[in-house]
Amino acid sequence: MSQERIKIVGAGLIGTSLGLALTKHGIDVGLENRSKANLRLAIEYGAGKEAQGDYDLVIVCVSPEMTAEVVAGQLAKHPQALVTDVASVKAEIAREVARIAPEHALRYLGSHPMAGREKGGPGAARADLFFARPWVITPSADTPPASVERLKNLAMQLSALPIVMSAEEHDRAVALVSHLPQLVSSALAARLQSGNEQQLGLAGQGLRDASRIASSDPDLWLQILSQNANLVSPLLAEFKNDIEELLQSLENLDSPGSLAKLHNLLERGNSGVARIPGKHGGKFVDYQLLTVVIDDSPGSLASLLTFIGEVGVNIEDLKLEHSPGAQIGLVEIQVLPEAAERLSEQLTQNGWRLV
Amino acid sequence: MSQERIKIVGAGLIGTSLGLALTKHGIDVGLENRSKANLRLAIEYGAGKEAQGDYDLVIVCVSPEMTAEVVAGQLAKHPQALVTDVASVKAEIAREVARIAPEHALRYLGSHPMAGREKGGPGAARADLFFARPWVITPSADTPPASVERLKNLAMQLSALPIVMSAEEHDRAVALVSHLPQLVSSALAARLQSGNEQQLGLAGQGLRDASRIASSDPDLWLQILSQNANLVSPLLAEFKNDIEELLQSLENLDSPGSLAKLHNLLERGNSGVARIPGKHGGKFVDYQLLTVVIDDSPGSLASLLTFIGEVGVNIEDLKLEHSPGAQIGLVEIQVLPEAAERLSEQLTQNGWRLV
Repeated sequence: MSQERIKIVGAGLIGTSLGLALTKHGIDVGLENRSKANLRLAIEYGAGKEAQGDYDLVIVCVSPEMTAEVVAGQLAKHPQALVTDVASVKAEIAREVARIAPEHALRYLGSHPMAGREKGGPGAARADLFFARPWVITPSADTPPASVERLKNLAMQLSALPIVMSAEEHDRAVALVSHLPQLVSSALAARLQSGNEQQLGLAGQGLRDASRIASSDPDLWLQILSQNANLVSPLLAEFKNDIEELLQSLENLDSPGSLAKLHNLLERGNSGVARIPGKHGGKFVDYQLLTVVIDDSPGSLASLLTFIGEVGVNIEDLKLEHSPGAQIGLVEIQVLPEAAERLSEQLTQNGWRLV
Repeated sequence: MSQERIKIVGAGLIGTSLGLALTKHGIDVGLENRSKANLRLAIEYGAGKEAQGDYDLVIVCVSPEMTAEVVAGQLAKHPQALVTDVASVKAEIAREVARIAPEHALRYLGSHPMAGREKGGPGAARADLFFARPWVITPSADTPPASVERLKNLAMQLSALPIVMSAEEHDRAVALVSHLPQLVSSALAARLQSGNEQQLGLAGQGLRDASRIASSDPDLWLQILSQNANLVSPLLAEFKNDIEELLQSLENLDSPGSLAKLHNLLERGNSGVARIPGKHGGKFVDYQLLTVVIDDSPGSLASLLTFIGEVGVNIEDLKLEHSPGAQIGLVEIQVLPEAAERLSEQLTQNGWRLV
């Protein structure tokens, strides 16, 4: 197969990142963007050149609510091209494309690289944004298998993990693992507005983690949630039922069954969180946690990790914690259980402060 | 002041950790525990010796629902001692102690070292569990100032950060920053029970963070929530109202005002999360993020950090990410904005794969 020519429409975070990644792979990338300033910025970054002529593959990377319209336009403009998009909700866009461009709809194949950052815009782009992330491809019953292969190859070229499922399956999955958590985290964080400084000063890692995604972009999420409202609603309704039952239990603690309901919800939380797959795509390994105290100064973390490397133990996960008010850091290291004791001994014997 | 004799009642995670820490400081620690096996384990770890004779300070580290009774027993047994506890809810315990031991209640002073781990029991104990953590001390109007000073000194001796507030202020604060997040995270995670494997396979860091504390111990949390139900309920009721409004908006997206309400909630989430104080007790510094690709093998993280140490840049935060399906890791490093460019250049020039 001769070298593909790929066009990217939309030079935001995803479009520019795609352009950078494809250009790095020596692919001829054409860029198109409504804002000329952002287009120039993306080109200066090295994400491609201004789009011109014909293309084999068009990747539409515009906002979710603009996607169907832009896809239809590109299908008409490039009558030989396969056109895909990267929006986070798939079924509504596919329906919309079929409605406004029925004669071209077979050349549209939706996809969703599950990559993103807190920040948007071409300035936040990274060539490896898609690295080892799921890239969902959502064919309909009529999509030519060759088109699916083409997008799978694209995903693999960028070191992403292609996963094929229907648009409806995809939307149902992200409703559960992405859209519901977003709403819940935002609603939790909204409660913090009523807290005073003393109260918020007692915030620990639990609250920080539970509320982190509440800092996401409201404009983008309004579009995502609007497009998937019919699949998110039932999940949110079930969540609301649990919250109502919890509230009733807490308000009537002495009623028979209240404590059992409260306990049951906490237990269901345990089993739910245990279902999230672990690292390396496999099941959770029960890593052992070692915590080491280091100075909060350049090089101290490095010398710790150099030492651990010399001991020959692989660090499976690492968290650096700076505690409020302290100029000292705690390094939490997860290692395989069989390595934990040896490492712990070696660290202690060599003067590291293990806690 | 002559050397204090401190008694710890309860050799679980907190009691054993306290014993280890105090023993390290050369303090004579007596341990008492209902289970003889756990007591022996804690003593073998070096957390103290079996309690005998009289003590100046008694720290009760038993389960929340047993605390008041055990505090009352210790007040009677040690008529000169200041008795404190470490339970996560303070007002109900203080009321209970005043009720069952009114003649001794002035010698009780509640406290709450805000430290813990996912795992409990003496085997999970760490001498530095309290390191740089808030340690709330909750005097009543009648508490002798000298008792408050004594606990403040204890906290500082263990490198914790003493914070004095009333029991009611404390309980109101933890209702917001700890108990509400626990319920919300558990209820979110409970929804995952209904998901299939394909759906959960699309889980990203957002869901992982939002649901992490849902793996906490249901038995312990049942007690904590029961003791603070009257302060958690109103917060959960407000949260429920937001969820109900969200649900109505999603179910009636075309009704006037629905999108505005949805957008408003997302924006309130933004402002709420921005109120959580940052590291070092100060405001958030807007660190710059650099992401480096490394091999998932011993020593590779160390050599990266050694290099960064040699460049002389301090790492403010670090996250190690293993992507599902990949045997390669992404290291996300936060550095001060003024150091980011220099570090980035140095890394690239020296062959590190920056993304």
